[in-house]
Amino acid sequence: MADVDVSSNAQSLSKKAAKKQAKEAEKAALKAEKATKVERVAEENDFAKESYGILPLIQSREKIGWSRNLEFGSGDGDSSPTLHKGHYRTLVRVSELAKEKANKVVWVRARLHTSRSKGKQCFLVLRQQQFNVQGLVSVSATISKQMVKFVAGITKESIVDVEGVVQLVDQKIKSCTQQDVELHLEKVFVVSLASPCLPLQLDDASRPHQEIEEEGRVTVNQDTKLDNRVIDIRTTTNQAIFRLQAGVCSLFRNHLIRNGFVEIQTPKIISAASEGGANVFTVSYFKTSAYLAQSPQLYKQICIAGDFEKVFCVGPVFRAEDSNTHRHLTEFVGLDIEMVFNYHYHEVVESIADTLVQIFKGLRDNFQTEIETVRKQYPAEPFRFLEPTLWLEFQEGVAILRDAGIEMGDEDDLSTPNEKLLGRLIKEKYDTDFYILDKYPLAVRPFYTMPDPNNPRTSNSYDMFMRGEEILSGAQRVHDPDLLTERARHHGVDLEKIKAYIDSFRYGAPPHAGGGIGLERVTMLYLGLPNIRQASLFPRDPKRLTP
Amino acid sequence: MADVDVSSNAQSLSKKAAKKQAKEAEKAALKAEKATKVERVAEENDFAKESYGILPLIQSREKIGWSRNLEFGSGDGDSSPTLHKGHYRTLVRVSELAKEKANKVVWVRARLHTSRSKGKQCFLVLRQQQFNVQGLVSVSATISKQMVKFVAGITKESIVDVEGVVQLVDQKIKSCTQQDVELHLEKVFVVSLASPCLPLQLDDASRPHQEIEEEGRVTVNQDTKLDNRVIDIRTTTNQAIFRLQAGVCSLFRNHLIRNGFVEIQTPKIISAASEGGANVFTVSYFKTSAYLAQSPQLYKQICIAGDFEKVFCVGPVFRAEDSNTHRHLTEFVGLDIEMVFNYHYHEVVESIADTLVQIFKGLRDNFQTEIETVRKQYPAEPFRFLEPTLWLEFQEGVAILRDAGIEMGDEDDLSTPNEKLLGRLIKEKYDTDFYILDKYPLAVRPFYTMPDPNNPRTSNSYDMFMRGEEILSGAQRVHDPDLLTERARHHGVDLEKIKAYIDSFRYGAPPHAGGGIGLERVTMLYLGLPNIRQASLFPRDPKRLTP
Repeated sequence: MADVDVSSNAQSLSKKAAKKQAKEAEKAALKAEKATKVERVAEENDFAKESYGILPLIQSREKIGWSRNLEFGSGDGDSSPTLHKGHYRTLVRVSELAKEKANKVVWVRARLHTSRSKGKQCFLVLRQQQFNVQGLVSVSATISKQMVKFVAGITKESIVDVEGVVQLVDQKIKSCTQQDVELHLEKVFVVSLASPCLPLQLDDASRPHQEIEEEGRVTVNQDTKLDNRVIDIRTTTNQAIFRLQAGVCSLFRNHLIRNGFVEIQTPKIISAASEGGANVFTVSYFKTSAYLAQSPQLYKQICIAGDFEKVFCVGPVFRAEDSNTHRHLTEFVGLDIEMVFNYHYHEVVESIADTLVQIFKGLRDNFQTEIETVRKQYPAEPFRFLEPTLWLEFQEGVAILRDAGIEMGDEDDLSTPNEKLLGRLIKEKYDTDFYILDKYPLAVRPFYTMPDPNNPRTSNSYDMFMRGEEILSGAQRVHDPDLLTERARHHGVDLEKIKAYIDSFRYGAPPHAGGGIGLERVTMLYLGLPNIRQASLFPRDPKRLTP
Repeated sequence: MADVDVSSNAQSLSKKAAKKQAKEAEKAALKAEKATKVERVAEENDFAKESYGILPLIQSREKIGWSRNLEFGSGDGDSSPTLHKGHYRTLVRVSELAKEKANKVVWVRARLHTSRSKGKQCFLVLRQQQFNVQGLVSVSATISKQMVKFVAGITKESIVDVEGVVQLVDQKIKSCTQQDVELHLEKVFVVSLASPCLPLQLDDASRPHQEIEEEGRVTVNQDTKLDNRVIDIRTTTNQAIFRLQAGVCSLFRNHLIRNGFVEIQTPKIISAASEGGANVFTVSYFKTSAYLAQSPQLYKQICIAGDFEKVFCVGPVFRAEDSNTHRHLTEFVGLDIEMVFNYHYHEVVESIADTLVQIFKGLRDNFQTEIETVRKQYPAEPFRFLEPTLWLEFQEGVAILRDAGIEMGDEDDLSTPNEKLLGRLIKEKYDTDFYILDKYPLAVRPFYTMPDPNNPRTSNSYDMFMRGEEILSGAQRVHDPDLLTERARHHGVDLEKIKAYIDSFRYGAPPHAGGGIGLERVTMLYLGLPNIRQASLFPRDPKRLTP
């Protein structure tokens, strides 16, 4: 299993933050110790002793609450922490706790997000994914002092089962998503107790950049977050980012399937490096060695030459590039497309651009909550796109840059800073964050790119950009074995190594084009996140292999 | 690029087949030579010379036929093989060639599946994916002898653009999918010429087992097919298999997304071997080494402990097992599920079984054509399943086997032959090809499996079977770090190596369970295919890394 080095986290925090964290951890440890003590000494004469405690491990002993068609039926009088057979219990979602449920008694399973005790009362925030609600335990005829003390001692991030009455509140509770009600708890049982020493605090990890800078408040650095992803992904920001990312995949696939594309599965272990052997990971394969695929392109093309006509695949792509930038990963998810066309590769470019536009629309229409949630922590301008998509030739892009004082040759590729600058200039001029650059210089593209028959210096290839960063690279592929051989020779590619690739086109191959989209880049750039690692659940880069 | 060793294919054929193939290749070579000659010497005085020929490479010179909203408008008088700007052409699909199109003039792009010349006529079969139609060229006022000769010389599998009149036929053409019409061709242009020497013939590769055995006809062995996947996947059987497989993925995901699951992307390069280091591929990772993930389980569990509640993923899984069987691959596609439950892991088992049942129903309802197509080559009984799903305890399965005379201990795992036998016995008794075995002996499951609290010898784990072969293995996972440590110690697992895994459950973890489904196994067993390699586009096994 992956090696999360928890012990090193403190080092990566700033001194001040580390000090604060250490203090908090100490406090929490004391708190937990007390909690355990409370539980251990659970006084026999406590009149509320049946209303709280630590549940035995849920090991599926009995089928409690399993009969899913039962009426909402809490409070059947059985209040023992050891649950009995026949005790059906419906758990209510935190998101459902609203005015309509006022005065109802409900059971909820949630995390203890925070707690704050105050004399004979203890206020809690109960969290479930991106939703949270205020809870309250206070000494009464049914709730003992010991019980309040127990609740106050439960460690943050523990999972609890609580029973309580949904109470309307006079003033909206602004710190919670459920603002109109709070839960007056009658029973509190711990399902899973969190360690008192959390390697990071959710509130710190969720703090907006602005607050950190302006108010000098504690934050958590990126490595600590990534080292402790199991806690970090609980933040509402991360819950939103990865739900939206799942949405990108789903929108991509659904649009293509509706349009007659077939999903294919391509192998990741391959016998020869796809593009000359640079930047490729080597794998030991029984008595020989193999490589990790840098792209599914060969396989997409075999499927095209194999009559599938329009294919797509979603899967990992591996690049052994020692690039430590905000936008490079050594393993990322490729959303790949390849399709035949009749007469002109622009049929394919249109189809890919349309796919992206459908994704942008789907995100805008179905993920507004997630977008707004992320924006609270990472403010960004809404993502703008045009219909039809803005489509410039590479040389038009160069002209815009030259107008802005940039010097570059006709056959130079765009540098990363120039790409970004061009993005800003295009945004100013056309008000779009998404556009296509078509007809790249032939010299800067791989050997299998179809040369432009109308201009010996350009090629039938294109990149697509979001907020000035490339998210897709694609081209018409050479589907003729003789021209492909000639192009490979021109690029100095070892013909012996690509024999099988060239041979794929010897048995009749239709004209085709395609491209590959980086999922994490789409997520990062759509949301305007500062770093691609924030758009990968478990990022891999030259220095990170864990968790 | 992958290394397809075309030269070795002949060796893997039987002598007789090899001889026949060599003969055919020779014939084809001659034919092609003639075709080229015909083209080269294209007599200036041939009155039909504008109606046939080899098109220049489609290099996207002009946007012909690109204006997609135009009326169906063929036959505009421009008959030159070099297509001009403004020449809009709508290509009609072979599947659309039916009675309704009678007497219309259409353009079609298709593969030349076969041709047979007969005096002044040449009959062709034009194929497009799983559809085909008969074509006919015969000498007439507009069609010259030379043209018929040219057409007769076009190599099989070449891609052609043809213009012709859709003609009703008196007798159904039983050898084609389009049985009511044939195309009387007026123009024939080659878009992509196939090599005259095909490493395998589609008709041979598509022959049903029965015909091969009874009539001693030529077939193509599996290695030749796999070596030449670019041709092999063009068979209607393969087109159907992989469309159905895409359907499995789509049905799986759609069902889960509808039920609130979140799709996650898990890394394939990991820092430590998940299950003790056996059967794992090693990767060179910059200055260190890493491994290929044998399952996404750790990451699914982190996402569960990270509050995603219900997750799934679809992706490659790697097993460095030197198993050369009909059902093992070294790289396969895992359809993985993990979810929290409230009180009993059967909540999860029900959910997974329901997902599979929805897949079976979706295949039955939406892929009947594909199922029937595959059955023509690989006859199999229709796949049977029950609702609710048949659910037996492991010991009930053992009892059925013992009744049939099999001897086995209470804590023995099922051997592969016993699993298959049990499948047959269950089919006889319950008439189902799908069932669950629950409560496996604790001793035969991994350390992270939750022990059954009611029986020290059994565990909260399950396998699911299709036609007597395992397609899913799953369990309630131990979510308590102390019990997990104890179980790991009991299994002799090095605690240091799994520290990070255990630590994942220290910050509050809900009870959860899950499982992983093998996509290729589901495809193979649903269709009753004899070998898992037939359910993988580009299979990987200890001896195969190409194409």
